[in-house]
Amino acid sequence: MGFSFLPVEQNFYNLFERQAGYAVDAASCFKALVSKGTLDDDMLQKMRDIEHQGDGVTHEILNGLNKTFITPFDREDIHTLAKQLDDIIDMLYTIVNRMRVYKITGIDKNLVQFALVIEESCRAVSCAVKGMRNSKNFAAVSESCVEINRLENVGDAMRDLVLGELFETEKDPITVIKMKEVYQDAETVLDVCEDVAHVVQSILVKQA
Amino acid sequence: MGFSFLPVEQNFYNLFERQAGYAVDAASCFKALVSKGTLDDDMLQKMRDIEHQGDGVTHEILNGLNKTFITPFDREDIHTLAKQLDDIIDMLYTIVNRMRVYKITGIDKNLVQFALVIEESCRAVSCAVKGMRNSKNFAAVSESCVEINRLENVGDAMRDLVLGELFETEKDPITVIKMKEVYQDAETVLDVCEDVAHVVQSILVKQA
Amino acid sequence: MGFSFLPVEQNFYNLFERQAGYAVDAASCFKALVSKGTLDDDMLQKMRDIEHQGDGVTHEILNGLNKTFITPFDREDIHTLAKQLDDIIDMLYTIVNRMRVYKITGIDKNLVQFALVIEESCRAVSCAVKGMRNSKNFAAVSESCVEINRLENVGDAMRDLVLGELFETEKDPITVIKMKEVYQDAETVLDVCEDVAHVVQSILVKQA
Repeated sequence: MGFSFLPVEQNFYNLFERQAGYAVDAASCFKALVSKGTLDDDMLQKMRDIEHQGDGVTHEILNGLNKTFITPFDREDIHTLAKQLDDIIDMLYTIVNRMRVYKITGIDKNLVQFALVIEESCRAVSCAVKGMRNSKNFAAVSESCVEINRLENVGDAMRDLVLGELFETEKDPITVIKMKEVYQDAETVLDVCEDVAHVVQSILVKQA
Repeated sequence: MGFSFLPVEQNFYNLFERQAGYAVDAASCFKALVSKGTLDDDMLQKMRDIEHQGDGVTHEILNGLNKTFITPFDREDIHTLAKQLDDIIDMLYTIVNRMRVYKITGIDKNLVQFALVIEESCRAVSCAVKGMRNSKNFAAVSESCVEINRLENVGDAMRDLVLGELFETEKDPITVIKMKEVYQDAETVLDVCEDVAHVVQSILVKQA
Repeated sequence: MGFSFLPVEQNFYNLFERQAGYAVDAASCFKALVSKGTLDDDMLQKMRDIEHQGDGVTHEILNGLNKTFITPFDREDIHTLAKQLDDIIDMLYTIVNRMRVYKITGIDKNLVQFALVIEESCRAVSCAVKGMRNSKNFAAVSESCVEINRLENVGDAMRDLVLGELFETEKDPITVIKMKEVYQDAETVLDVCEDVAHVVQSILVKQA
């Protein structure tokens, strides 16, 4: 069973797809950045641009929501989904900015690992969001959500391992303070991806 | 004045009672664990099991909410209450997991104190949630909520005392980093219990 | 075009104005306190009183919301706005309490700078909230919201500068732990002010 589309619905779905696309861009930028181990101005600017574009789409969705009478799914779910996709991008920007402020340089293999998992998770988020448009895709959307949940568990285990190691081996407390925050932030990105999966799944259940 | 029950209502109340029961279990497990001062595998596994069972009930409530047309009280309040009860259990699991990762061992009298207050608060949460089923119990529910608020204030004062002492006496910055986070988490459990009390009270006001 | 007022509406607007007023009071008290560089008991008590009065108004709004059938704008927006105004006051109280517990004394020029920006932002919040009462003021309300957003950006830049400096120059890790938390809290106050601006703007869009 499919469902029909009104122009306004098309628009919301388009905006969510763009927002999820920016989340993938932010994740790729983050991966490139930590793989290089230096924060050059170009990459910082690129991250800032992505965050700015993400903000733009978020405002478009929220303003559209305030002005639109009929929406393709629950208003509250639209609001939550837009906010959470925005949070993914914001959190990635926050990490990069923190690395700049804390002057964290050099390739940290743990951060590279986190970046790989985050990129995978953002790709799954993007698949899930794209699939919402048509009920024919709902099985695939569910699979993406399961994958996002799996990656969140991977991230939890990584964070535990990495923090355990940090407290075990790092003797400089200032470095512990800095890296602990960055690792915890990295894991938070995966938590927010999981929040997206939850809201997407709840939207699907309501439309079933 | 009482109000009648539909089967679906019964079901929501049953699920909330089970969820609150798991919160009490998690609090008791936390108390046993910090009183012992060592993290043996059995206790860790027990905590993991409780967290897992709590997750199961939370999903049952949220899925039920998406599929059910008539609910015993505001859909949003059901959603909030389920999330907050889940947060209590998650937070307790988070603390225990952190203690494992940070290799915090030995009996810490402050953590034991926190565990006692947390268990008391979770028992009051359970009483409040059980009482919601029938308007005859609303006075008792209100009393439980007052008690939860009181225990949150107790926790605030404990956290201030304990952190003041930590900064005053602990000379190892790494230990300060670890214990500060664990104490703040412990106090957060009491904050979440207070959030439950607020939503329960607001549900009562609407049904009065 | 104006819109008419019912007594109940008047009441909600009055309560929001009082709440925003307490936020300004808390900000002024915070500024006085950090400018002095010592935490005397009178100022602590004044902060506690403001926080307490703020709590009172918040409960009045939330209880009114539960008992009132018709509200001047979306129930959810009323709830969010009340919570966020309360969060501003709570956060300021939290900072002051933390300074007491952490025994932070002496004039810190960075905190004074933060306090000035926070007071400005709270004044803009108060203007925005006052203006909501009448659609004639909506242009002025929008201007206040733009100003709040601007001050949040100022705060972000200040936090980055101040934390960078802290990590660069402060050699005592315990001091880093303490001041990092206080600076981040101070910036959070400006984030919450921005959240208020967002909800006020969304209320305006819906009433346009």
